[in-house]
Amino acid sequence: MSYSKLCERERERATLASCASLLGWDERTYLPAKGQAFRGDQLALVARLCHEMLIAKETADLLSTAEGTTLSDAERANVQGIRRVYDRAVKLPTELVVALAKATSAGQNAWEQAKHQNDFASFQPYLQTIIDLKREEAKAVGYVDHPYDALLDEFEPGAKTIELQRLFDKLQKELVPLIAAIQQSGIEAPREILERSYPVESQRQLSEWISEQVGFDRSAGRLDVTVHPFCSGIGPGDCRITTRYNERAFAEAFFGTLHETGHGIYEQNLPVEYFGTPLGTACSLGIHESQSRLWENFVGRSKPFWHANWKRVQQTFASTLSDVTEDRFYAAINDVRPSFIRIEADEATYNLHIILRFELEQALLTGDLKVADLPGAWNERMQKMFNLKVPRDGLGCLQDVHWSAGLVGYFPTYTLGNLYAAQFMVQANADMPDLASQIASGQYAKLKTWLTTNIHSHGQRYSAGELCERITGKPLSHQPLMTYLKAKYSELYGI
Amino acid sequence: MSYSKLCERERERATLASCASLLGWDERTYLPAKGQAFRGDQLALVARLCHEMLIAKETADLLSTAEGTTLSDAERANVQGIRRVYDRAVKLPTELVVALAKATSAGQNAWEQAKHQNDFASFQPYLQTIIDLKREEAKAVGYVDHPYDALLDEFEPGAKTIELQRLFDKLQKELVPLIAAIQQSGIEAPREILERSYPVESQRQLSEWISEQVGFDRSAGRLDVTVHPFCSGIGPGDCRITTRYNERAFAEAFFGTLHETGHGIYEQNLPVEYFGTPLGTACSLGIHESQSRLWENFVGRSKPFWHANWKRVQQTFASTLSDVTEDRFYAAINDVRPSFIRIEADEATYNLHIILRFELEQALLTGDLKVADLPGAWNERMQKMFNLKVPRDGLGCLQDVHWSAGLVGYFPTYTLGNLYAAQFMVQANADMPDLASQIASGQYAKLKTWLTTNIHSHGQRYSAGELCERITGKPLSHQPLMTYLKAKYSELYGI
Repeated sequence: MSYSKLCERERERATLASCASLLGWDERTYLPAKGQAFRGDQLALVARLCHEMLIAKETADLLSTAEGTTLSDAERANVQGIRRVYDRAVKLPTELVVALAKATSAGQNAWEQAKHQNDFASFQPYLQTIIDLKREEAKAVGYVDHPYDALLDEFEPGAKTIELQRLFDKLQKELVPLIAAIQQSGIEAPREILERSYPVESQRQLSEWISEQVGFDRSAGRLDVTVHPFCSGIGPGDCRITTRYNERAFAEAFFGTLHETGHGIYEQNLPVEYFGTPLGTACSLGIHESQSRLWENFVGRSKPFWHANWKRVQQTFASTLSDVTEDRFYAAINDVRPSFIRIEADEATYNLHIILRFELEQALLTGDLKVADLPGAWNERMQKMFNLKVPRDGLGCLQDVHWSAGLVGYFPTYTLGNLYAAQFMVQANADMPDLASQIASGQYAKLKTWLTTNIHSHGQRYSAGELCERITGKPLSHQPLMTYLKAKYSELYGI
Repeated sequence: MSYSKLCERERERATLASCASLLGWDERTYLPAKGQAFRGDQLALVARLCHEMLIAKETADLLSTAEGTTLSDAERANVQGIRRVYDRAVKLPTELVVALAKATSAGQNAWEQAKHQNDFASFQPYLQTIIDLKREEAKAVGYVDHPYDALLDEFEPGAKTIELQRLFDKLQKELVPLIAAIQQSGIEAPREILERSYPVESQRQLSEWISEQVGFDRSAGRLDVTVHPFCSGIGPGDCRITTRYNERAFAEAFFGTLHETGHGIYEQNLPVEYFGTPLGTACSLGIHESQSRLWENFVGRSKPFWHANWKRVQQTFASTLSDVTEDRFYAAINDVRPSFIRIEADEATYNLHIILRFELEQALLTGDLKVADLPGAWNERMQKMFNLKVPRDGLGCLQDVHWSAGLVGYFPTYTLGNLYAAQFMVQANADMPDLASQIASGQYAKLKTWLTTNIHSHGQRYSAGELCERITGKPLSHQPLMTYLKAKYSELYGI
């Protein structure tokens, strides 16, 4: 009784929060310019009402009572998940929540201007305030080993900084020589192919088509245009993904759409009967990202995938691609080279971008790195890790929105996503020996069903680590990703 | 102090309600099919939270305290407006509110099917429930003369059934012979011109253009596509209007857009400093409709307007309109003839459609007309008033969504809009002798400013009746509309 009342209450909170999801989606797709300020008021109000609903005495009472009753395993997992969110929320003083909301709202505006003008100095005081508040947040939430743990936990429940650092160190150690070998191979991918003319309307049709092909349910979702693509699971039967079209950048919309489609398929296949409770919610950001990366890269940048889809793409852009072969196209979309911008990075160097940020934000949080010294530290690491000299902060420490939005502890989930995706794909191939040939014939349903059965359907029933062990029999490791990258690139670059 | 706290509280409620506005807009423009059920949950939750916020003890306390303090005229008007809404809300038992929400949600679904299948019998039990509940609502709200007063008051504050009936009787008495004279004139408008081929993309561009021309601020609003067009003022800087495009129906999108543009201009020019309180809210539905009708008909179907815009329209649809003159086009868009469908009716017969509904819904409410007898009563009146035999209920009593949505007492505001628009235009022409020549040269700013100064800027400071007297020096009358229609049609039909 208290369990079902607790779930009912949480469902209501999720329904209210879903209104904010729609407000957010609209803000980034259709909102008229002059509606921006009021949209902020709407979002702030809904966020406050959700927070009040969560930390109300009724929630605490229902939680305690439910914890004292006999529950099934699923019910217990659900109650534990609610407890986790509740405990975190009540630890945060309301003044801190409000201060963070204001600081990140102001911070994002300041960041946008600063990025545009390559002017870190103008952003510095805003970032200082945000880092100070995040430090307070970490203290309020509490931690044993590292203040970063307290922030990481919000995005990747149960993850520990020290363990991630170990994992990422191993990854970096193997990635760096692989990237060096590619650079020294003397083989250069025909990147220019992707920068030819791809009429936007044809790109749009292709994106919508491929999204549905791999399993996004358009009758329960939409694909719209935005500046910084995202996926928003509004609620049962309603998941919105977004992309952007640039006539001179084939990869941007195509792989961007596949990426968001992966997130969207996860959201669309969460168990609807648990909507609004942990068992109906995605496991972690790392697992979420594993789904987007899996469709974008492990499927979308694979040979079998292009075996199935090359002809259609070539016909769609007939005059643009008449002189290109399937192999050359495959080489172009798997171009590896160090670059400044994370979101444009290839499958190998991408993870170095993450490691750089992961280490810098730890140092910012502990105070080992002063905010004023961020650009210097960033540029120094870019030189060391990528052998690149950052010409301006817009291509450096000002490129990402995350810190201005208070998202500290978020970046590592991107590389976790790559690692999980690689490890899941090893198992998927073992479970379905015909998987590659399925994909080569444009059949994705079996893989999608496998993902739903093994991942989507569990919501937060297991932690990300537990889920990984359940599916693959092993804890998360850097090896599957490295094995995958080495195999792929040794063939492409003859290394 | 209590006044500003009260306003703050109401602004918050309005901000929450504005989330429902966006949910509603999205439901009718972009929502994926499978998201429908959950959208209902979201809307129901927000409606409940708004209702709870309104009827909470805090509102009552702040209201009483504010009423006991010294207030400016504007403040007093604001407090009175809040009192009105509060008093109505607390009179409604929560069970009745919930029952109505359920009955109208089920009712609209049933209506849609019934309309599609011309099957009144399947809709009858739903309508019966709704009428029963509306009767309860009228009783709960209370009334002196007629239960219909209690419902009418929600849409047209202060309006009385008996006064509307008198006004509409006078209107009908003069409309009927005018329409008869037009029918007997022997002149038939070249309606087929409007049913030629008008490519949708050109219509879209034209609609967006004319909407901005007359004064809709696209940086503070949008024009999207929907099935049943509407305008939704989300909040400051954000007003959404909608239209629909049909290649074989020029008038639908063009005049539909002008209509919603009129609503949109009203919403966009309400005083933003009063947002969320009565002084920042549209006066009444009748006044709202006066703004849409004014731009759609009094401007959009006028000779000066087409003097300014004919060439552009002819060029836009060059192959379609090459053989058409400005005069013939003007005649086509002012075709008068009795027809089955209200929303497609001309400026004269439209009001008979309203009078028919106004009388029938009064009779349904008092019980003088049984729900089961509605189709018969409808068809009988159509015969008498329009000399038309209704072939099926989809063209008859099932054509409008209103009753299935619980909107009883809403229809008369449409004709009130026509009457107010006519009376306002007489005054506008008196105040601005060059108005017609302004419009003839495509200049609408002066009229828009006049409307904002005289109407929009006041919000609910004055009742609709007071506003009319303030602006025109006279109470609302059927004469200005009749004078306008007679002048226009005597020229067109030589009567």
